Amino acid sequence: MENFQFHNPTKIIFGKKTHRNIGQILKEEGVKKVLFVYGQSSIKTTGLYDEIVDSMNAYGVEFVEHSGVKPNPVLSHTLEGVRKAKEHKVDGILSVGGGSVLDEGKAIAVGALDDGDLWDFFTGKREIKRALPNYTVLTLAATGSEMNGYAVITNEQTAEKLSIGSIYTFPRVSILNPELTLSVPASYQPYSAVDVIAHVIEWYFTCTVCPGISNRLVESIVKTVIETTEKIIKNPSDYDSRAQFMWSATLALNGITRPGYRGGIYVNHMIAHSLGALYDLPHGACLSIVIPAWMWWYKEKNRPQFERFSREVFGTSDYQEGIKTLKRWFRSIGAPVSLRDAGIPSSDIDRIANHVHSTTAKVWGLDREYTVEKIKEILYLSLRSNIVE
Amino acid sequence: MENFQFHNPTKIIFGKKTHRNIGQILKEEGVKKVLFVYGQSSIKTTGLYDEIVDSMNAYGVEFVEHSGVKPNPVLSHTLEGVRKAKEHKVDGILSVGGGSVLDEGKAIAVGALDDGDLWDFFTGKREIKRALPNYTVLTLAATGSEMNGYAVITNEQTAEKLSIGSIYTFPRVSILNPELTLSVPASYQPYSAVDVIAHVIEWYFTCTVCPGISNRLVESIVKTVIETTEKIIKNPSDYDSRAQFMWSATLALNGITRPGYRGGIYVNHMIAHSLGALYDLPHGACLSIVIPAWMWWYKEKNRPQFERFSREVFGTSDYQEGIKTLKRWFRSIGAPVSLRDAGIPSSDIDRIANHVHSTTAKVWGLDREYTVEKIKEILYLSLRSNIVE
Repeated sequence: MENFQFHNPTKIIFGKKTHRNIGQILKEEGVKKVLFVYGQSSIKTTGLYDEIVDSMNAYGVEFVEHSGVKPNPVLSHTLEGVRKAKEHKVDGILSVGGGSVLDEGKAIAVGALDDGDLWDFFTGKREIKRALPNYTVLTLAATGSEMNGYAVITNEQTAEKLSIGSIYTFPRVSILNPELTLSVPASYQPYSAVDVIAHVIEWYFTCTVCPGISNRLVESIVKTVIETTEKIIKNPSDYDSRAQFMWSATLALNGITRPGYRGGIYVNHMIAHSLGALYDLPHGACLSIVIPAWMWWYKEKNRPQFERFSREVFGTSDYQEGIKTLKRWFRSIGAPVSLRDAGIPSSDIDRIANHVHSTTAKVWGLDREYTVEKIKEILYLSLRSNIVE
Repeated sequence: MENFQFHNPTKIIFGKKTHRNIGQILKEEGVKKVLFVYGQSSIKTTGLYDEIVDSMNAYGVEFVEHSGVKPNPVLSHTLEGVRKAKEHKVDGILSVGGGSVLDEGKAIAVGALDDGDLWDFFTGKREIKRALPNYTVLTLAATGSEMNGYAVITNEQTAEKLSIGSIYTFPRVSILNPELTLSVPASYQPYSAVDVIAHVIEWYFTCTVCPGISNRLVESIVKTVIETTEKIIKNPSDYDSRAQFMWSATLALNGITRPGYRGGIYVNHMIAHSLGALYDLPHGACLSIVIPAWMWWYKEKNRPQFERFSREVFGTSDYQEGIKTLKRWFRSIGAPVSLRDAGIPSSDIDRIANHVHSTTAKVWGLDREYTVEKIKEILYLSLRSNIVE
């Protein structure tokens, strides 16, 4: 077991009706005026907007609105939020939405107390030393942003998509009401499910020291995601499955599955990022195309972990069968499992491989390990769904 | 899944040599002078005392010593610590030891900022509103105190053993170096193992709503405890097993296994507390005597959970076999599994049952549910090891 640190100070308030307490929570936290960050109009049509506003009004918490956060939040809109936060002298950020909204909220929280170039923190030029407290009401399970310090922002000018992470950007309080996810169409569930599974299995398969306790926590999350996803697709109004899925998604990226691993990289996310940049595909779809191919390509490099996975998650002693079963499961819930499924021809593979290598792989420091040739090998395995089968 | 809150702000620094950073950590936290709380002389003979002192000296952190904490920490000694903390105007508490030392350190942290009767917080007369920051270096895995806000203190005058719990008493930073547990004799491992298992299975078996995700985390911990305990007993210097056991013990009581359960009581701890008060037995031994009997007595009241446990932990579809297997496992590692094993005659059962009912059961609000008659039924099942077999 490797040395590690674990520190996650976010307070989670989970369950039915909990979002209606946001005004009281902010007041108890001593917050007087927030920048109220959200995305498109959906929170208005569902009535969530009114409930949040009513709660803040009831406790005398003032707010300034900053709406229009995009699915992949961009720097220009973030800087607009920073400007508003400063102009109105808010003392907190309230983000209501999915991962994108939460991420932009965190970035604004940093920018609001800084007079330099915000992008410096993303490129690593400067280190985050403080931020306004940020609070969240989550409406979409998958991201994990509600219980960690990370935020991903795209700089449209430089075409960079980079992240920050700091103890100062952990939400102080995150409200997770699974009822709010009932309005998410069941057709979106496969993408969320694949994303959550990817969040935990990437480290699990790429570790060189892999403690049993952390392995078991990963397997617990994967099994719960599989079980609850099947139920949600069958019955989208199944509260209990929505709830367990939501909490599993939070656990998947709050650090609790990581202790003691040596190694651990996000290679599938790396390739999926480029697919997402080049094609109009949901993030989860990019991952479900890449993961089975990468697993097949990588399986001999960490066979004991693939054997564990196959045995513990799918009850088979055949480590190759575990990979195939996961792929079949992706397909069974409606996620694409090949480039062909997504309408991407083999002639695009060179372009994708070069994009992966020259963008994400470089930024993440994985370009030495993952050469263009290797990325192409993986992409060829993802070409048709019958290659890994 | 029931509504829940989760908030655990303790920072964990885990691994080899980590305790040597205590001076630097305290300095970074802005702490200038600590009350250095520890137990008997063992930390001096192992050299740990010197390493802690050297580290504090190197970073200019002053300290006042408060040693002699007893295995079941008592109020009088705690108040002596409070007096020292006030007299020397310390601005933090550093506890170095096992659960007892950590618990007393937390209670002192509360008393140091309070001018009333400290016992009020234990009886529930007053609510904890603040405490000095407390820091810990753990030397014994089992307690969980290193990552929660609880502390148990015995008031010798009133013969009460009560607890406090508050967000203010969570350690700010806890240092967990598994190397420090290498000096714990392997003969103590069974008691630690039983205690950790008890910490997670009590809620698991007494829940009325039992979410799959939390069930799986519990099973992950139980399986890891079983696996690592067998290895530690075989090879006490097995660092990796010591490490995984230590982290599992922390996870067992840091709240992460609880989300979404409805119900959940500590009935085995309740009975074990009385056994511990009446006989000179380790806490873990009291638990290993009670648990199989209680499980057998209770099994029909929550059969699906017993079926889960038997299947997931021991791979048997027979829910009674799971209980028997756990009992056999307790015996195999050297833990007593009956009153007879501990030399307690059947003629004592009345006295024990009355003690349980009139003390812990009353304090914990379980005296209505657990009548003297019911407690006697359970104790009779624990009389001889062949009753549940």
